[in-house]
Amino acid sequence: MNQVKKYLTKNQRHFVLDLCEYLRFPSVSADGNKDGLNHCARWLVEHCRRIGLQAELCKTKGNPIVIARTPGHRSNGKPHYLVYGHYDVQPPDPLNLWKTSPFHPRLVGHSLFARGASDNKGQHFAHLKAIEAYLKTGTELPCNVTFLIEGEEEIGSPSMAAFLRKNRTKLRCESVVISDTALYGLEHPTLSYGLRGVCGLEIVLHGPSRDVHSGMFGGAIENPAMALCRLLSRLRDENGRITIPGFYNDVLELSPFERAAFECRPFNANEYKASLGVPDLFGEAGFTPIEQTSARPTLEVNGLTSGYQGDGGKTIIPSWARAKITMRLVPHQTPRKMLALTIAHLKKICPSTVRMEIVEEHGGGEPYLLSPESAKIRTALEVLRTVFGHEPLLVREGGSIPVVNDFKRILNADSLLLGLALPDDNAHSPNEKFNLEVFAKGILMSAHLWQQLSSAERTSTI
Amino acid sequence: MNQVKKYLTKNQRHFVLDLCEYLRFPSVSADGNKDGLNHCARWLVEHCRRIGLQAELCKTKGNPIVIARTPGHRSNGKPHYLVYGHYDVQPPDPLNLWKTSPFHPRLVGHSLFARGASDNKGQHFAHLKAIEAYLKTGTELPCNVTFLIEGEEEIGSPSMAAFLRKNRTKLRCESVVISDTALYGLEHPTLSYGLRGVCGLEIVLHGPSRDVHSGMFGGAIENPAMALCRLLSRLRDENGRITIPGFYNDVLELSPFERAAFECRPFNANEYKASLGVPDLFGEAGFTPIEQTSARPTLEVNGLTSGYQGDGGKTIIPSWARAKITMRLVPHQTPRKMLALTIAHLKKICPSTVRMEIVEEHGGGEPYLLSPESAKIRTALEVLRTVFGHEPLLVREGGSIPVVNDFKRILNADSLLLGLALPDDNAHSPNEKFNLEVFAKGILMSAHLWQQLSSAERTSTI
Repeated sequence: MNQVKKYLTKNQRHFVLDLCEYLRFPSVSADGNKDGLNHCARWLVEHCRRIGLQAELCKTKGNPIVIARTPGHRSNGKPHYLVYGHYDVQPPDPLNLWKTSPFHPRLVGHSLFARGASDNKGQHFAHLKAIEAYLKTGTELPCNVTFLIEGEEEIGSPSMAAFLRKNRTKLRCESVVISDTALYGLEHPTLSYGLRGVCGLEIVLHGPSRDVHSGMFGGAIENPAMALCRLLSRLRDENGRITIPGFYNDVLELSPFERAAFECRPFNANEYKASLGVPDLFGEAGFTPIEQTSARPTLEVNGLTSGYQGDGGKTIIPSWARAKITMRLVPHQTPRKMLALTIAHLKKICPSTVRMEIVEEHGGGEPYLLSPESAKIRTALEVLRTVFGHEPLLVREGGSIPVVNDFKRILNADSLLLGLALPDDNAHSPNEKFNLEVFAKGILMSAHLWQQLSSAERTSTI
Repeated sequence: MNQVKKYLTKNQRHFVLDLCEYLRFPSVSADGNKDGLNHCARWLVEHCRRIGLQAELCKTKGNPIVIARTPGHRSNGKPHYLVYGHYDVQPPDPLNLWKTSPFHPRLVGHSLFARGASDNKGQHFAHLKAIEAYLKTGTELPCNVTFLIEGEEEIGSPSMAAFLRKNRTKLRCESVVISDTALYGLEHPTLSYGLRGVCGLEIVLHGPSRDVHSGMFGGAIENPAMALCRLLSRLRDENGRITIPGFYNDVLELSPFERAAFECRPFNANEYKASLGVPDLFGEAGFTPIEQTSARPTLEVNGLTSGYQGDGGKTIIPSWARAKITMRLVPHQTPRKMLALTIAHLKKICPSTVRMEIVEEHGGGEPYLLSPESAKIRTALEVLRTVFGHEPLLVREGGSIPVVNDFKRILNADSLLLGLALPDDNAHSPNEKFNLEVFAKGILMSAHLWQQLSSAERTSTI
């Protein structure tokens, strides 16, 4: 390990430069920029090969998946871990809010600004660099590691399940390690034992066959924008509760152990409000903001479009109005059932004066929950304690990593969620960044992790 | 008049070609396309001069106003009428719904398709061509006529009041003639004795200072798009009544004479629904669609904008959400009071979890009402009866012509609203058109109108 650590210290600057190269690709999956995605994936394969991994680009029905394995894999009988990540990124817009171009990485202090910097390129890159240190210094790895980096996470990982099923034997592993969640500060290393699920849909309400003059026709026909507003406003009550019948039926209530663990997470409402710039907090009555954002389901409108959006005014009744909606789910809600309940409710409350079109989003992900008191969790907590020198937090993550459930279902593997994204890293927002001190700690964490996990594995098999 | 009629018959084709030239200018006032507006105004001045009018381009703080007068104006002691129109047009978008380019006029049968064809270039052009016939045939006009064609009607005529005040003496007149309203068919010549007023505002609800990750933050902060939907949905009830306190206090109820006159207007609910493509009608309970669209006030959302609007999804809580809103007002509501009531109500019901920004629209127009039993109305009805050969309809118009009240207040002149736009002419919509049979009848109507109005004027002054 000394050689590994020395290599890491010496090469930190190179690692940042490598990461900058990686961040230059506009690998946005939502808008189907195939060139940006393909070039990015090919660059990643080349990079993995350069650091000594056996890498290949695997075709799927969607964007390619990058697989990179440590050498000598088949024969050495060592435990096998998967590192999962994704090279696709969220759309960068609204572009005008970026201080510099989202695909031209910019370093300010310890912050590296770029779309994908923390979500997720920087985070899985930390693991790549840890393995690079082993390989380049000739230090023997106590395990086999396979990197599985996909290009469709931000659109719900539609190709992953089929890929895992097809490569089930090759990918069989002890655990999956994922860095795609939050770290609550360098003094608060964080382990997530749960994730919310996600599902989405798009509603379009159609009114008149064209935008019509609000003077000539206003008063006798429904305005689709107003009907949409009414429809959406009827999905949530004043206490922040979703009003879709049955929506909470499958929700697992928090245990006292969990509520106590959540209390350890530093939280200052005023700082939280200030960091987000909101005048006040709002959430489901009876729960703390930490509980609301990690262990309670939500329904959010992600986008609204209707009528005239340019400068000035246009006195029309719009022909149609559209909303993009996603829901965050918690155990034991399922995307399928929640979508069905939502659609049934929408159909029930949609007035006869407009025609509703519902576009169900592909993909979606189940929520995930690992016992917070399991052996693997304890090992990972020990690594965090050693590397960061602080007591780690045990949290449930508000975001979603849909494939975590595929790993469980198809590979029968649990996922260890060792997040490296600071709360102010602006994931999914303009001016996304990655903290380079966290990057360095993350690489060290990864280097230690393989030792500890493998050692725990050996102990448990004896 | 025989010479005039002969000229009109002979030159109808030329008139259409002239109109096509006029329609080629993208004179959109809402988006501030100054070039399109200025070129259009200059062309109009030249055209007026060519047909024998004394025309000039008058600067304003906004877009120029075109003034064109019949010669010999000052000295002849004849009555004076103003023809008002506007050369500015609505924005043409959504462009993809136009069958051909909005500023490349296209003739199909009797329909001339182009933005501005009926609203309003074609309509005031009819009056220009009638005057042209008098001037080109050397037929003595029984009156003086001044054309006042502005370039800001579609944005609420912000420069007109100042212009009228400044030119009060020059523009003093017996009446204003305006063709900018509906004609319910060649068998239903139409005279409008009332107009709805209009006022507008834009609301922006601000939430987090940037779009944020709906997984990380969803549940603890308000979603501005959802708050906006709730706010807007609270402005109207299920019976189509606006719920802003005091909104109906100043509304003049319809008289039995008016309700009876409205009953004469042909209306078939199924055809109306089919022509608009709506599955059902919706309006204020207790009123017919004709009443709802002409004599009752409305509140319409003209545009909604929030969050991600591209393809696919983006799991964010949007930073802000915006609505463009206009209200149609009826006597004796005033834009100022209705805006004040609306803004006060919005402020009252806006939750503390978002910050509301209200942008009041400039301009706005008062509603207008002329006694449907006055002498001028009777004269105009007689002209319609003669020219169209059918009993005219007496209606109130759902749209707004804000300057009509300026004419009354500043010039003390009533406006005769002799509309030439068919209900299916798609004013403010894609594929706007103007019917060329109506155009021809409109020119003839104008030619007769000057005789009848002047003659009635002489009788009344004796």
